[in-house]
Amino acid sequence: MTTNARFTALAASLPSTVPFTGPEEMERRRGAPFAARLGANENGFGPSPRAIAAMQAAATEMWQYGDPASHDLRQALAAHWGCGVDNIVVGTGIDGLLGELVRLTVSAGEAIVTSLGAYPTFNYHVAGFGGRIETVPYRDDAEDLPALLARAAQVDAKLVYFANPDNPMGSWQRGADVAAALDALPEGCLLILDEAYGEFAPEEASVPLAVDDPRVIRMRTFSKGYGLAGARVGYALAAPELISAFDKVRNHFGMNRGAQAAALAALQDQDWLAHVRDEVTRARDEIARIGAAQGLTALPSATNFVALDCGGDGARARALVAALAEEGVFVRMPFVAPQDRCIRISCGPSADLDALEAALPRALARLDPVA
Amino acid sequence: MTTNARFTALAASLPSTVPFTGPEEMERRRGAPFAARLGANENGFGPSPRAIAAMQAAATEMWQYGDPASHDLRQALAAHWGCGVDNIVVGTGIDGLLGELVRLTVSAGEAIVTSLGAYPTFNYHVAGFGGRIETVPYRDDAEDLPALLARAAQVDAKLVYFANPDNPMGSWQRGADVAAALDALPEGCLLILDEAYGEFAPEEASVPLAVDDPRVIRMRTFSKGYGLAGARVGYALAAPELISAFDKVRNHFGMNRGAQAAALAALQDQDWLAHVRDEVTRARDEIARIGAAQGLTALPSATNFVALDCGGDGARARALVAALAEEGVFVRMPFVAPQDRCIRISCGPSADLDALEAALPRALARLDPVA
Repeated sequence: MTTNARFTALAASLPSTVPFTGPEEMERRRGAPFAARLGANENGFGPSPRAIAAMQAAATEMWQYGDPASHDLRQALAAHWGCGVDNIVVGTGIDGLLGELVRLTVSAGEAIVTSLGAYPTFNYHVAGFGGRIETVPYRDDAEDLPALLARAAQVDAKLVYFANPDNPMGSWQRGADVAAALDALPEGCLLILDEAYGEFAPEEASVPLAVDDPRVIRMRTFSKGYGLAGARVGYALAAPELISAFDKVRNHFGMNRGAQAAALAALQDQDWLAHVRDEVTRARDEIARIGAAQGLTALPSATNFVALDCGGDGARARALVAALAEEGVFVRMPFVAPQDRCIRISCGPSADLDALEAALPRALARLDPVA
Repeated sequence: MTTNARFTALAASLPSTVPFTGPEEMERRRGAPFAARLGANENGFGPSPRAIAAMQAAATEMWQYGDPASHDLRQALAAHWGCGVDNIVVGTGIDGLLGELVRLTVSAGEAIVTSLGAYPTFNYHVAGFGGRIETVPYRDDAEDLPALLARAAQVDAKLVYFANPDNPMGSWQRGADVAAALDALPEGCLLILDEAYGEFAPEEASVPLAVDDPRVIRMRTFSKGYGLAGARVGYALAAPELISAFDKVRNHFGMNRGAQAAALAALQDQDWLAHVRDEVTRARDEIARIGAAQGLTALPSATNFVALDCGGDGARARALVAALAEEGVFVRMPFVAPQDRCIRISCGPSADLDALEAALPRALARLDPVA
């Protein structure tokens, strides 16, 4: 016997595999740092200088727990969105909030619906609480909301996951279309509208729904547009009855104090966000140009990453991801066909894209060596 | 209908009450900041200057996710404890790790055993997963390990919670006695040895058990001795089979990157820890002196706080806590009798203790106004 712990039947049944290998672990395995870190959709243009200053100031206060209510941040978010403080819960990134939402709503054996190849961490949480994952294929490299909702009705789903814009493909849908589609949402089914990349999307993608709409919970993050992935701050917007339920299960003192300060400062610097948006737009074009020069086609993107169609199957894309890593460039790719014909490259500063431009032909040459 | 979310039966049954009100919320309610923040067992002597520097340096890297493996920190902890990296899991404070451990081991209706009036956040997690909380009274203001283990055998407990030193009383037990008592631990029952305050305890309190001992999981934190409560870094030490199970449920990308860097730097500055220990010893004596001057008796403490016996019942202590708050001093107190005859005051720098010394007679006068 190596532990007295008697695991629950559910815990004993869960796989021990780790959802993602982080870039640091990949660097340890290859024995060298990456020249360009373009795989995790991090925002290499960085957070607002005001957010950096806020974290540096908070460092000397770090002996104090953070405010468990995240009061100041929620006040600022309420003003930003024109809603009530009781419409907002703050958590350790969308990942943490998704886990809490699944815990609140999904009992063992109950169904959720998501797209085949959509955000795997949501599936990790659903599996972790014994939920049943029902999937619907992408349609033209986009999540197919009408099909998701139809499946939800068939399987009596508790939750439907839908990201707009989408990760990993970068596609986006008109907000008016999303809102109209919700007429088909079954009663008792909640739509998770993951807007992690919302700060990069065109105005037209914003979904015209009241924050109190009972059918939807919107997830937002400071990891992407605001460049604070390492801080771990996300939030959800929904009706107060749903928001207050998070207080039943969340880790109340779980927020890093400096992260709270950083998010507040970042939110108050919308000029920096506009600057980042411009840089991202430029970088998307640059990635498309670098890909095109090697015969790879960029898909349209409303995010801070670009899916490059490698013109082959998943095996070829996987080989290219591995070859790029050997050339010092960290990228990732979609998990399932047909999306896995692509590799996914995050936007970053010029030096990173220069490294990509240098590495891509060399990586491709590794795949197709001259005989 | 205000939300489409259909909560699980368990979630619907949970109370909406929040476990602790944070000091910031109390300040908002009273409309003024506290002069002394001595209620949450935070470490007002602060973290190592090296940890502060590490956080300030990490601020500019905060666009990157933290390493989901917490590799560097775990390596350093393994060297510190003379154990393997696979004996260590890092999480968002002991609070976060307790939640994950309960999730892994406690199914609805299953029992855990703890002391009546011990750490409430553990109970919060157990209730949150539908577990049954069995309690054993304190004995002479200390947790009664033999009685806890006897109760565990009676109720087929999955977990026994035992803190050494204890919070909220500050008492501690000889490590050799703890180890010997474990002969009575039932098979299939895991002891949680919460050593949150272990850095303040005398050497004799350290429990002589191998890290691979199947019966125990030890919880440690950077919040107390290392002064990083706001960073949210804790870790557990146990056999690899138990440690690896956390990977099935934990939020892999949940660690703040600056917090990881801060914890690593703090661990590497044991001189600062020794300095903090000296300051805490001095502050404990000072709190005892301040209390004695007003007729309140300090209990012996092996932690960074002191329980002051107010010589009355819980109502009197509660009134004193409220009166101290009105006088600008934030303290807390035990929740249940007979421990609730005490108030609990955290150690802090001289300025805070000066504020305490000035406030205490005024607060007592509020309780016993001259007629």
